[in-house]
Amino acid sequence: MTLEAIRYRTGSLQILNQLLLPHQTVYDDIRSVQDAYEAIKSMKVRGAPAIAIVGCLSLAVELRAGAGGDDPVTFIRESLCHLTSARPTAVNMGRAARELMEFAENESMEKNSEQLRESVIAWIEDMLERDVNDNRKIGNYGAQHILSGVPRDSVTILTHCNTGSLATAGYGTALGVVRSLHALGRLKRVYCTETRPYNQGSRLTAYEAVAEGIPATLITDSMAALTMREMDITAVVVGADRVVANGDTANKVGTYQLAIAAKHHGIPFYVAAPSTSCDLSLESGRDIIIEVRPPEELTSINGVPIAAPGIEVWNPAFDVTPHQLITGGIITELGVFLPSELQAALTGRLTAL
Amino acid sequence: MTLEAIRYRTGSLQILNQLLLPHQTVYDDIRSVQDAYEAIKSMKVRGAPAIAIVGCLSLAVELRAGAGGDDPVTFIRESLCHLTSARPTAVNMGRAARELMEFAENESMEKNSEQLRESVIAWIEDMLERDVNDNRKIGNYGAQHILSGVPRDSVTILTHCNTGSLATAGYGTALGVVRSLHALGRLKRVYCTETRPYNQGSRLTAYEAVAEGIPATLITDSMAALTMREMDITAVVVGADRVVANGDTANKVGTYQLAIAAKHHGIPFYVAAPSTSCDLSLESGRDIIIEVRPPEELTSINGVPIAAPGIEVWNPAFDVTPHQLITGGIITELGVFLPSELQAALTGRLTAL
Repeated sequence: MTLEAIRYRTGSLQILNQLLLPHQTVYDDIRSVQDAYEAIKSMKVRGAPAIAIVGCLSLAVELRAGAGGDDPVTFIRESLCHLTSARPTAVNMGRAARELMEFAENESMEKNSEQLRESVIAWIEDMLERDVNDNRKIGNYGAQHILSGVPRDSVTILTHCNTGSLATAGYGTALGVVRSLHALGRLKRVYCTETRPYNQGSRLTAYEAVAEGIPATLITDSMAALTMREMDITAVVVGADRVVANGDTANKVGTYQLAIAAKHHGIPFYVAAPSTSCDLSLESGRDIIIEVRPPEELTSINGVPIAAPGIEVWNPAFDVTPHQLITGGIITELGVFLPSELQAALTGRLTAL
Repeated sequence: MTLEAIRYRTGSLQILNQLLLPHQTVYDDIRSVQDAYEAIKSMKVRGAPAIAIVGCLSLAVELRAGAGGDDPVTFIRESLCHLTSARPTAVNMGRAARELMEFAENESMEKNSEQLRESVIAWIEDMLERDVNDNRKIGNYGAQHILSGVPRDSVTILTHCNTGSLATAGYGTALGVVRSLHALGRLKRVYCTETRPYNQGSRLTAYEAVAEGIPATLITDSMAALTMREMDITAVVVGADRVVANGDTANKVGTYQLAIAAKHHGIPFYVAAPSTSCDLSLESGRDIIIEVRPPEELTSINGVPIAAPGIEVWNPAFDVTPHQLITGGIITELGVFLPSELQAALTGRLTAL
């Protein structure tokens, strides 16, 4: 069974409400752009690729019902603008909005309203399919690369945060690699870090693993180095929020520490990310600004206080792992590359072997 | 103001109920050995040194009230046996029980019941005082050693778990070093890890810091490496559950990972521990058995589930940091020693400089 976080059929969209996970599995209907806006803003759906997909699919649902009337371009523009504002830091929604708007404007030159709606819907449905396909490619490339390095029958992976079906259009990036290894019958076990403070590991990755019968063990973030020493970890695989030109990678806080521990134990460290998460406009990770989030994420859980009142808190959401620590490689839908090869690979000057 | 976790005056004992921390500050009367047994078992008091002190002090309180009648030795033996059984893994209580029993038996040769009671009470009160004094020495030795290595005016420390007044007879070990630096006016700030899964950092260390006005910032365990890189950490100082002959140190899980990250950043890593926590009978850390605790510590907080139902969990309570990573030294009440010097220092063949 494959976990479905986004259920789409032409004209109809449902999302798995992540606010209720892992305790309740409830699908919410998304009937309009406004429904999607609210779902994104309230974090019923999260993960940059998933946000973009759900936003655009909600637009497709409205267009199918005839929204925009005689002037669909204006409706599309206003809708995309609204969706992008729900969580302005999620780059994928902004990128999708720009590309879709350009497409819609070109199409409007030669098509009538009805034809335009059809072609925009097709573009969006293609986006959904492409994202899942890219993730499957990432999964396969990553699995093959990891397996090529070990003579043993099965491998043990350590991963961080949630990079699975719940963060993407489906399948996932780092967790997609884990899924591929499992599908090949070569996954012995995956160790998932809890991923404090927002617990994406214990709530979401654990949920996906249980739902699909993937052998998985939850650990606290502080147990990762001990797990590497005691549990024969074959590789560490994580996702990425942004990979820059030299291969430096911003990802969920804790990734940097995992990379240091992996290096100490001689365990290959991989970043799995679609090429759309790569940002060649930045030279190095020093240029990435780290988002600092509210203290309450550390001092309470579900609104219940868990820390001493009055304590100061530092809560950076991400950290940057220098490319030197990404010893396994960067797994993209184009292949697996060393950080030093990434730029050439993405600009078509290098092909995966 | 100094936080008092144990309030003792001849004939009367109160402890700060740690089950209610950090949200309520309540002192519970301990009027008998049975009261202490229940407080230890239910974890109203925790930390190996604190358990031993509270256990013995409860005995002193009963002896002061005339317990044991004409045969105090039998009463003392049965009481110590009962106290040791409350949490059998806490070595300090067992060690104190053996030493105190030997003392009481010797005293009983030449003293009557009343005199015996007095000398046992004096022994116990001396134990309380000695523990606090040893901690103050640890604090001072550690602070001087750290300050000698830095030309700057003030230092920034990173620590793990709770090693303060709440874990000892008072003052603390690693947190005692932090207290000493603060008392000297040389502490810029201490970063405390949350210390999952039992949250001793966010509940207890944060509570002590707030109570005493020590500048402190709470971080998740996963943020430690980033904090080392971004926050100009002068030294990492942690406590110990057991230090063995070659300097390998068992401590709260996550310590090993911190030591790896400290090494990566060239930051000195210190272990603070009284000589009573050193166990020269074991050659290396490989001989230390790691206690694995129940999964519920990860999957729920205060009884409320926080993880996906059905997920497997690995919950080791401790890890072992190899002596090679203890680059700053081992801080004892006798001085600060390199791991390679520890054995000679504890057996009197080496004196601190």
